[in-house]
Amino acid sequence: MPACMKEKEIHGLICRTFRQGRKVVVGPGDDCAAVDVGAKRLFLLAVDQVVSDVHYVSRSTPASAVAVKLLKRNLSDIAAMGGEPEFALLTIATGSADRRWITAFLSSLRKEALRYKVSICGGDISSLKKTGTVCTLTIAGWVEKDRICLRSAAKAGDLLYATGCFGNSFKSGHHLKFIPRIDAGRFLAGRFTRCMMDVSDGILADAQRICESSMVSLEIDTAAIPIRKGASLASALSEGEDYELIFAVKPAKSARLEKEWPFKNIRLSRIGRFIPGKSCRILDMNGKLLVKRFKTGYEHFSK
Amino acid sequence: MPACMKEKEIHGLICRTFRQGRKVVVGPGDDCAAVDVGAKRLFLLAVDQVVSDVHYVSRSTPASAVAVKLLKRNLSDIAAMGGEPEFALLTIATGSADRRWITAFLSSLRKEALRYKVSICGGDISSLKKTGTVCTLTIAGWVEKDRICLRSAAKAGDLLYATGCFGNSFKSGHHLKFIPRIDAGRFLAGRFTRCMMDVSDGILADAQRICESSMVSLEIDTAAIPIRKGASLASALSEGEDYELIFAVKPAKSARLEKEWPFKNIRLSRIGRFIPGKSCRILDMNGKLLVKRFKTGYEHFSK
Repeated sequence: MPACMKEKEIHGLICRTFRQGRKVVVGPGDDCAAVDVGAKRLFLLAVDQVVSDVHYVSRSTPASAVAVKLLKRNLSDIAAMGGEPEFALLTIATGSADRRWITAFLSSLRKEALRYKVSICGGDISSLKKTGTVCTLTIAGWVEKDRICLRSAAKAGDLLYATGCFGNSFKSGHHLKFIPRIDAGRFLAGRFTRCMMDVSDGILADAQRICESSMVSLEIDTAAIPIRKGASLASALSEGEDYELIFAVKPAKSARLEKEWPFKNIRLSRIGRFIPGKSCRILDMNGKLLVKRFKTGYEHFSK
Repeated sequence: MPACMKEKEIHGLICRTFRQGRKVVVGPGDDCAAVDVGAKRLFLLAVDQVVSDVHYVSRSTPASAVAVKLLKRNLSDIAAMGGEPEFALLTIATGSADRRWITAFLSSLRKEALRYKVSICGGDISSLKKTGTVCTLTIAGWVEKDRICLRSAAKAGDLLYATGCFGNSFKSGHHLKFIPRIDAGRFLAGRFTRCMMDVSDGILADAQRICESSMVSLEIDTAAIPIRKGASLASALSEGEDYELIFAVKPAKSARLEKEWPFKNIRLSRIGRFIPGKSCRILDMNGKLLVKRFKTGYEHFSK
């Protein structure tokens, strides 16, 4: 057994390791956890990090952009569950408490949190022994019990839709400028889908997670993938950092969805169809395995 | 203005920066945030981190001890509010996904979470560009509205009590072995105190925070400070990492508290008395400033 673990293996281990109490309705393995706090709606909890020179290039990314990305990555997780955000907690671990960096970071985070009506109500700060910065944000919010969207709810026959465009996200700066799809998620959740996730690791890697959670396979129409200007199909399928939603829709609801879609500025694309198959494979329209031809997502531990 | 910020200055800036929605009952500046989720009790939220070679010596601390410290630091924050924990989220950012380290860390965290009935229901993992490890844990729990303990609730005349012993925590290994005072916090909250915090930065630094939040001064009887075996008074006052509770008690309740204290293995000590004084000074029994003679806490950004 190799001494170094791959990201997927660690994720799997985390999902299996922890025992969940009976108030945990959705545990590790979805975009958020969902817990029962005795309210009408389920309480959503998630945490995400941005690490210097992993999630952004520290030399060229202003502190304000780092703060905004940190919040929006988390909002994208809430959007994927069909929820809306309310509270957040912040941690910063940094090698140097540079005044200009910290004040720009906090002031920008304040503005962005106000825009999304998120109360950042606590946190922690620590030094790091090395240079660099690790920031985390915990997000909490709400979703109705009969609208919550899970990775495990896709059925063979369902169509796969996507919001927005894909590819070239890092180079084009989209990974810093994107708008988390909270409104689209709220529109879709319950009414048009019960299976949704946000694409942070690329369509192939993330659709693969839906397939594995739902025990189905998937046919993707690569010609229908909405590609960002200047991007290749390969980067649209594999690069990630798109923060768009992909979701499963029953064929009977497909026409109504396309007719009623209210977001003029957000492209809506039908990009595939779930098919029976517990092998959880992703094929193109010619029945060829897509994962053989394209990379699947970013691997944190690639050495 | 110096280019590097001190920890206290950053904390102050964070407390002032973020706008809080109306569901936030207790915002930044206490051991936990408390939010109204529409349940009978308030929902507590806090996050804490352990950073390699800041919070533990990476060469000599096993992964299992790191995991346990991470959870217990957070439990101590819940204890300080008089609450009980229920949910948690985990993040790991690490330079190398060493199999032995990660499996030992997770397995130990699993056991400790079971002991305290905490469901670790989500998280995130990332690589770091450098060596080292930054782990965070978000903790969530509950406290009754009429029992919540705040730093801001001390009044002149209240007595200051402490659980356990202080000093020499890092060298003696106490900072890894301590037991978070959840049971003591539950016993005290509402019945004997409404003002409590846990001592992570040393009695002086943390009592100073109570004074500043409550706008009172404090007289400490240094002869009454319960000192850990082998520790000096200076380390008991200033070193930190004790994870004991300090709390304010009305003089009228003092005798009953000492009589009814049910924890045979936890020392209970009366160590001081809050006095009027908006200058928020901490004096010894001779009226001399203690902060002049002793250091106040660990400074993360001391360069």
